[in-house]
Amino acid sequence: MANELLKGKRGIIFGALNEMSIAWKVAEQAHKQGAKFVLTNAPIAMRMGEINKLAEATNSQIIPADATSEEDLENLILKAQEILGGKIDFILHSIGMSPNVRKKKHYTDLNYKWYQTSLDVSAISLHKTLSIAMKHDAISEWGSVVALTYIAAQRIFPDYSDMADAKSLLESITRSFGYHYGLKNKVRINTISQSPTVTTAGSGVEGFDKFINYSEKMSPLGNAGAVDCANYCVSLFSDLTKYVTMQNLFHDGGFSSTGVTTEVMDKF
Amino acid sequence: MANELLKGKRGIIFGALNEMSIAWKVAEQAHKQGAKFVLTNAPIAMRMGEINKLAEATNSQIIPADATSEEDLENLILKAQEILGGKIDFILHSIGMSPNVRKKKHYTDLNYKWYQTSLDVSAISLHKTLSIAMKHDAISEWGSVVALTYIAAQRIFPDYSDMADAKSLLESITRSFGYHYGLKNKVRINTISQSPTVTTAGSGVEGFDKFINYSEKMSPLGNAGAVDCANYCVSLFSDLTKYVTMQNLFHDGGFSSTGVTTEVMDKF
Amino acid sequence: MANELLKGKRGIIFGALNEMSIAWKVAEQAHKQGAKFVLTNAPIAMRMGEINKLAEATNSQIIPADATSEEDLENLILKAQEILGGKIDFILHSIGMSPNVRKKKHYTDLNYKWYQTSLDVSAISLHKTLSIAMKHDAISEWGSVVALTYIAAQRIFPDYSDMADAKSLLESITRSFGYHYGLKNKVRINTISQSPTVTTAGSGVEGFDKFINYSEKMSPLGNAGAVDCANYCVSLFSDLTKYVTMQNLFHDGGFSSTGVTTEVMDKF
Amino acid sequence: MANELLKGKRGIIFGALNEMSIAWKVAEQAHKQGAKFVLTNAPIAMRMGEINKLAEATNSQIIPADATSEEDLENLILKAQEILGGKIDFILHSIGMSPNVRKKKHYTDLNYKWYQTSLDVSAISLHKTLSIAMKHDAISEWGSVVALTYIAAQRIFPDYSDMADAKSLLESITRSFGYHYGLKNKVRINTISQSPTVTTAGSGVEGFDKFINYSEKMSPLGNAGAVDCANYCVSLFSDLTKYVTMQNLFHDGGFSSTGVTTEVMDKF
Repeated sequence: MANELLKGKRGIIFGALNEMSIAWKVAEQAHKQGAKFVLTNAPIAMRMGEINKLAEATNSQIIPADATSEEDLENLILKAQEILGGKIDFILHSIGMSPNVRKKKHYTDLNYKWYQTSLDVSAISLHKTLSIAMKHDAISEWGSVVALTYIAAQRIFPDYSDMADAKSLLESITRSFGYHYGLKNKVRINTISQSPTVTTAGSGVEGFDKFINYSEKMSPLGNAGAVDCANYCVSLFSDLTKYVTMQNLFHDGGFSSTGVTTEVMDKF
Repeated sequence: MANELLKGKRGIIFGALNEMSIAWKVAEQAHKQGAKFVLTNAPIAMRMGEINKLAEATNSQIIPADATSEEDLENLILKAQEILGGKIDFILHSIGMSPNVRKKKHYTDLNYKWYQTSLDVSAISLHKTLSIAMKHDAISEWGSVVALTYIAAQRIFPDYSDMADAKSLLESITRSFGYHYGLKNKVRINTISQSPTVTTAGSGVEGFDKFINYSEKMSPLGNAGAVDCANYCVSLFSDLTKYVTMQNLFHDGGFSSTGVTTEVMDKF
Repeated sequence: MANELLKGKRGIIFGALNEMSIAWKVAEQAHKQGAKFVLTNAPIAMRMGEINKLAEATNSQIIPADATSEEDLENLILKAQEILGGKIDFILHSIGMSPNVRKKKHYTDLNYKWYQTSLDVSAISLHKTLSIAMKHDAISEWGSVVALTYIAAQRIFPDYSDMADAKSLLESITRSFGYHYGLKNKVRINTISQSPTVTTAGSGVEGFDKFINYSEKMSPLGNAGAVDCANYCVSLFSDLTKYVTMQNLFHDGGFSSTGVTTEVMDKF
Repeated sequence: MANELLKGKRGIIFGALNEMSIAWKVAEQAHKQGAKFVLTNAPIAMRMGEINKLAEATNSQIIPADATSEEDLENLILKAQEILGGKIDFILHSIGMSPNVRKKKHYTDLNYKWYQTSLDVSAISLHKTLSIAMKHDAISEWGSVVALTYIAAQRIFPDYSDMADAKSLLESITRSFGYHYGLKNKVRINTISQSPTVTTAGSGVEGFDKFINYSEKMSPLGNAGAVDCANYCVSLFSDLTKYVTMQNLFHDGGFSSTGVTTEVMDKF
């Protein structure tokens, strides 16, 4: 599609770690559609990552920010506007991390400090970003914010553990802040609930291959891939979706509306 | 937006009656985005309507069809492919009518023949269209079908009466058929749950002005307009949303996620 | 439980066919809890059934009624009050039938006359019952109506076919009528969305054993049985649940909130 | 109702502050139904409260516990079993507090330490209670846990502020832990989403009278009262509801399924 759906739009993209990241694909697709943006990630993530390659390819700058630090986020919001030459039109929040999952602490026996970190990094970081943006009136009218989530916020997937709670909180913040920012400045805020995707983050979850396979067979169109997710983000950043707000939008090949498929039932 | 998001795509648009119709706006936006399509409506509706003007403006042909008649729908599906030169890529179903509402028969005292007509015209017509399309393998891989609905399918709005039941049925058909057509040919089927919109259909509902006003004040972004709805349809017909299927998508300025607004509460 | 939760309450129980029927169990439990009621079923179903045994055991009378016939339903509503000596306090609607499922007509190729029968028998029968009851002011203040449904109304289960659409319609009628009857006379109307249950009706569905097994393994507490469902109905008929209305209540051992279980995932 | 639905059952009731508290009414109703239980509240809340009166009336003991302290909760779980003479059959979690709401810090400008306290007190306290109970195998098979919540977890109510996020987290914990505890020991865990209720907690929220009034007029049966909520809790603690788990159950007179009422619309 040789289009310029995001021509003239300025954005901030959180969470591009490497080529497998959905945020990476979003940056590539947004670039193709004419957007300008800055990339951001945690300083520690950037050391591991190859984000410089992406910055070069998309002609964008990188502003490191720890998404739990209000100071870092304020610096990000201010610098991004300087670099891009105006207010922000879109933000992608693609951040999630659970120390409990990483360190295999079971959901029924959580380390509550780590739980707090899960919530801070994966959910409250969105609130902080929006709060600071609002303070500085940094988002344009009809600006669009998208955060990535997963259906574990609605139904249990045992290995997803406390990330489910973090995603529920993220979706609640989306609705709550969406109300206030909508009234104030027509800013819309939504989550995309994406199929499980083979990314560095996803692959931290136990039994992930089985899970991808299960999900594939439970989705009439199959699992949605990262590039398709990026395209969906583009549609939500564009002016085609101006009145969609405070929604959780399933991009999952139909998984969420499927109780069972013939193929799955044949295993029983 | 000078884009060609629907370039080369072929469609069928049901329900354009006059300039106020959402379907009319969809036709205009789809045309701008490079789509070719046929227009269709009930023979009786077309006599009242100004659909010829739209056909001219969008360089499209009209195929009359009673959406409850399998024969008419088959003719439509076959002729549309002939005229457009290939399989169908998108369908808009924007049809709804309740004799009980029109004739002010109260929900608790329905005329069941009219009820049947409400279901037939407003919901089962989608099943028939899809069933016939599938029989003739008339929809392209990754084709997209959108039907317009209203949140009365989830929550009661007393004046909407039996149209609420019809919309619930429509949304169920969307999920059920979306599964089968997704598995078979990657066709995706969704509903858009649109803000109340001042159209000829909408204005048949009692107390509609009050209702539009209430809805406006309960929506952080205000009611979504018909052109914006058309743009949202375009995004769903496009390749940007390939893995979205079997969903009910609120295009409502946040109404569905709003329990109350300050402005509404001030009346109490 | 030696209780009298339903002491003095008068009811109508639709759908007891034989000992496997949920309605049969509801009659037994309601009887234990002190209720008086009439039993009803389609004349044709009663010829096959053993309903006389149940009537004897629960000291109740039988009034045959075709649930699609307004005349039969009116007779039922009037006679039941005569027999029981006053207004009705509770109604169980446990009726469902799809000729398309029985005759293995695929969902994508329905016989629309049979589809109409599915909707008529399984959903519209509830509307008719309530409409007639309202006309005769036959339900007591704070009366309680429960209809049995299945999660196929929300998510596809391919073999459930057009019964999914019928259940969606049933749940919509529940909400719509629940509003009007609640306002008018404090009558509450809900659906219970029950685990798949081995009944004569359930066993008509293709691949039902596999399905029961899948559902069992996807439910943290296992599938809910018929007697437990009956107990849940009792709680909803009782005064313990007076402000629950217009709800769809899952009685499913947690199935509806489970995305996957470890046991299911081990098959992938 | 002279019943003994909870005869022989042992419980823990969190959150009875004074006669207006829902937890207070739950204690009274559970007592009437034959249950034995301990009462618990934060040491600070107890100093303000009249909980001793309730303890006397229900012949129960009080164990103070700060619901954010794992140590206190462990002491509570162990002592309660000693006092009651066996494992716990039911738990009521009726705890909620937001410093941001109390100190009128706007949702878009939260104090994040206070936000953390909101989550800790109102939601994570449930996780801690369940985790400790599981460690000590303190809940009987088929035990029942109920936490009180509000529909702000699904739709925005602006004055409810960060309590909405806390309730979303609480509901997610309910689902997640409900899965694990269901599999392990058939324990069921649910939330009741209650009408706004005039309690000491509720009345901390701004504009509460208007809000109660709005909610009353938007609920076909009117707002559910505290005693009715207590009765609903009893039904969920009883054996009548054994297969209901991981659910959010609206006890709200139909509010959640009502888009608008005639009475509300007349104000527009």
